[in-house]
Amino acid sequence: MKIAMREGVTLPQGFLAAGIAAGLKRSGKKDLMLVVSDRPAACAGVFTTNQVQAAPVKLDREVVRRGVARAIITNSGNANACTGAKGMRDAKAMAALTANLLKVKPAEVLVCSTGAIGKPMPMNTIAAGIHAIVPVIAAAGGDDAADAIMTTDTRKKTATVALAIDGKPVTLTAFAKGAGMIEPNMATMLGFFFTDAAVEPRALQRALKQAVDLSFNRISVDGDMSTNDTCLFLANGAAGNRPLHPNHKDWGAFTAALSAMALNLAKKIARDGEGATKLVTVRVEGARTDAEADAAARAVANSMLVKTCWNGDYPNWGRIMDAIGYSPAKVDESKVDIFYDDLVAVRKGVAAKTPIEALSKIQQQEQFTVAIRLHLGKGQAEVYTCDCSEEYVRINVDYIKMPDGREPT
Amino acid sequence: MKIAMREGVTLPQGFLAAGIAAGLKRSGKKDLMLVVSDRPAACAGVFTTNQVQAAPVKLDREVVRRGVARAIITNSGNANACTGAKGMRDAKAMAALTANLLKVKPAEVLVCSTGAIGKPMPMNTIAAGIHAIVPVIAAAGGDDAADAIMTTDTRKKTATVALAIDGKPVTLTAFAKGAGMIEPNMATMLGFFFTDAAVEPRALQRALKQAVDLSFNRISVDGDMSTNDTCLFLANGAAGNRPLHPNHKDWGAFTAALSAMALNLAKKIARDGEGATKLVTVRVEGARTDAEADAAARAVANSMLVKTCWNGDYPNWGRIMDAIGYSPAKVDESKVDIFYDDLVAVRKGVAAKTPIEALSKIQQQEQFTVAIRLHLGKGQAEVYTCDCSEEYVRINVDYIKMPDGREPT
Repeated sequence: MKIAMREGVTLPQGFLAAGIAAGLKRSGKKDLMLVVSDRPAACAGVFTTNQVQAAPVKLDREVVRRGVARAIITNSGNANACTGAKGMRDAKAMAALTANLLKVKPAEVLVCSTGAIGKPMPMNTIAAGIHAIVPVIAAAGGDDAADAIMTTDTRKKTATVALAIDGKPVTLTAFAKGAGMIEPNMATMLGFFFTDAAVEPRALQRALKQAVDLSFNRISVDGDMSTNDTCLFLANGAAGNRPLHPNHKDWGAFTAALSAMALNLAKKIARDGEGATKLVTVRVEGARTDAEADAAARAVANSMLVKTCWNGDYPNWGRIMDAIGYSPAKVDESKVDIFYDDLVAVRKGVAAKTPIEALSKIQQQEQFTVAIRLHLGKGQAEVYTCDCSEEYVRINVDYIKMPDGREPT
Repeated sequence: MKIAMREGVTLPQGFLAAGIAAGLKRSGKKDLMLVVSDRPAACAGVFTTNQVQAAPVKLDREVVRRGVARAIITNSGNANACTGAKGMRDAKAMAALTANLLKVKPAEVLVCSTGAIGKPMPMNTIAAGIHAIVPVIAAAGGDDAADAIMTTDTRKKTATVALAIDGKPVTLTAFAKGAGMIEPNMATMLGFFFTDAAVEPRALQRALKQAVDLSFNRISVDGDMSTNDTCLFLANGAAGNRPLHPNHKDWGAFTAALSAMALNLAKKIARDGEGATKLVTVRVEGARTDAEADAAARAVANSMLVKTCWNGDYPNWGRIMDAIGYSPAKVDESKVDIFYDDLVAVRKGVAAKTPIEALSKIQQQEQFTVAIRLHLGKGQAEVYTCDCSEEYVRINVDYIKMPDGREPT
């Protein structure tokens, strides 16, 4: 199925949004975002599996459990994580103030925070920001909202698809952030999806979970998993279709669009990993099981030696052999083949005849695929990752002194 | 027990050694090492657990299984890993040529290789080197031998202890290399221990395994585990003591010295991790089990975000909370305390009152300890690691172009 996806945020009918600089970021960049639905929306969410969870994550789980939301208020510049009872009070206060000004129920306001861990939320600044942002929400405010959630991101990650459900025009729009602390299971990333389609709540959760598993849960920048990862999906039904569910004739088209958008955003996050210069797809085939293929692919994607090697020109495939060798996946080194795009680098565990210059040319591309064939079974998996550069270290060594005004994750 | 440990390699009675430049390293530095015992020595070994193993590792396992060795021949500059059947032939040829020139049995020659993976061994160079090194072995050659195994190491790692067994003077000497690809379970490291004490073979293996578990298996530089890790221990009995075994009255003194030396070398490896500027001890206490304490400590020690943070001055303990949160260990964030040396940074999961400047001062030391108390049980563990600097990335991005002549691991 061909999916016509566009860049940018086009808010679906009934949604308004804004992004402003509330003064949380030292740089003066946008740091507060609000998206509002003019009517109650079905809401789904997927969250970090970290045992240490930010206060807003705990709050949002409850909103998602109830399944109805009217707004998402999100700040960057402070994660509101490891902030104890005060952190939870602050998250609730953000929801309450937003709800009060919007005249909706506090229990229907979702809250997200991203930034440094362990710092108390500057609630005066936040409150003033919420007062400032509510009056400026607009149908055209989606791109500003996407700006306001960025931290060390260098580019905005957006995707929009128009489709027809029951013959009615429907919009699906989404934006995400994430640059460091990116690991399987949704490290510091926020992802927001909005549609004017009507979707049955349980079906919405199922569709989101499925899309996340095949996208945001398949990327890795540095193997760290954050306390704040949140992916939310609001569907307000303004399009007037019969509510979507798995037996609806347009369910396939809807979930295909959703999954394609999630994968598109996930790859953008990997490509924009802190300091990254390349997007690398690691595909493992022929493992004993899909789970073992996944484990081997993640070992490669998370190996610092592999990632630093990719940053340069020299295709040091020995490090890939090393990484699969210590992964939990069963490996017989004498059976392993490794390809860089369509060129074979390793055949039966030893160097193939391909000239190193040809492999190097592939590794110098901004995107390439490393395919590892284990020849032990039918298990396969694919993960999306990036190289690791000196810039990655520079960003993370001492963000307090970051020169260009980008903000800590 | 006070153990008087010295730097440097003092070969025990009956051992001769040399280290020469055979032409394997482009830099012209020493790259071939030979240690010989003038009589058969009991021999023990501990090896990488990677499924992808270098040819010499496979060969050495057999020698160690038989338990008797006369010599160790070791090259740096090429790992002889992922080299297939030719690699095994080459390792055997190294043993055979060394044995032939020394007039000992090939089955009693151990072989180690360290360097880049996946390149055929330049056997002409190696053979010429073996011919050159055999005539120059000497009782004073230990330090040259230690030089010859270095790759990206910036410092030699050596330790010597003199003790008395059955009233007879005994020497224990050891040297090691390791800088990148260092993870629990002995990533690219080589460690060699020699003594003139007589030790029963099975007791020797047991003592080495125990010492390695508490030292080399507790360090981590980058989370990568190598194909070549090898730790060997030769005991030739030249001191004339009654053979040591666990019921010998001096067994405790002997194993205490061995363990202290292993820990000393292991910490030197961590401190000299590629690009490292600091040695950090991560201690986890109060986990449900020792295994969970170990898992939590390793999650912290391997977190790129934690390690890059340590490279700077700012004690961003939120990243430590994050890492224990995604570790397999059970964590209740509201119970966690974190200390930098003796200063508390986190109390019950939130920032303690200690001024950030005081914590920063500790993090600026060349050595410090991060102690994490989970308050869930009695499990504890300690691992030794280092910070991650831009230099680490620089070294690993493109070692082909390394400016200062250091060689790839």
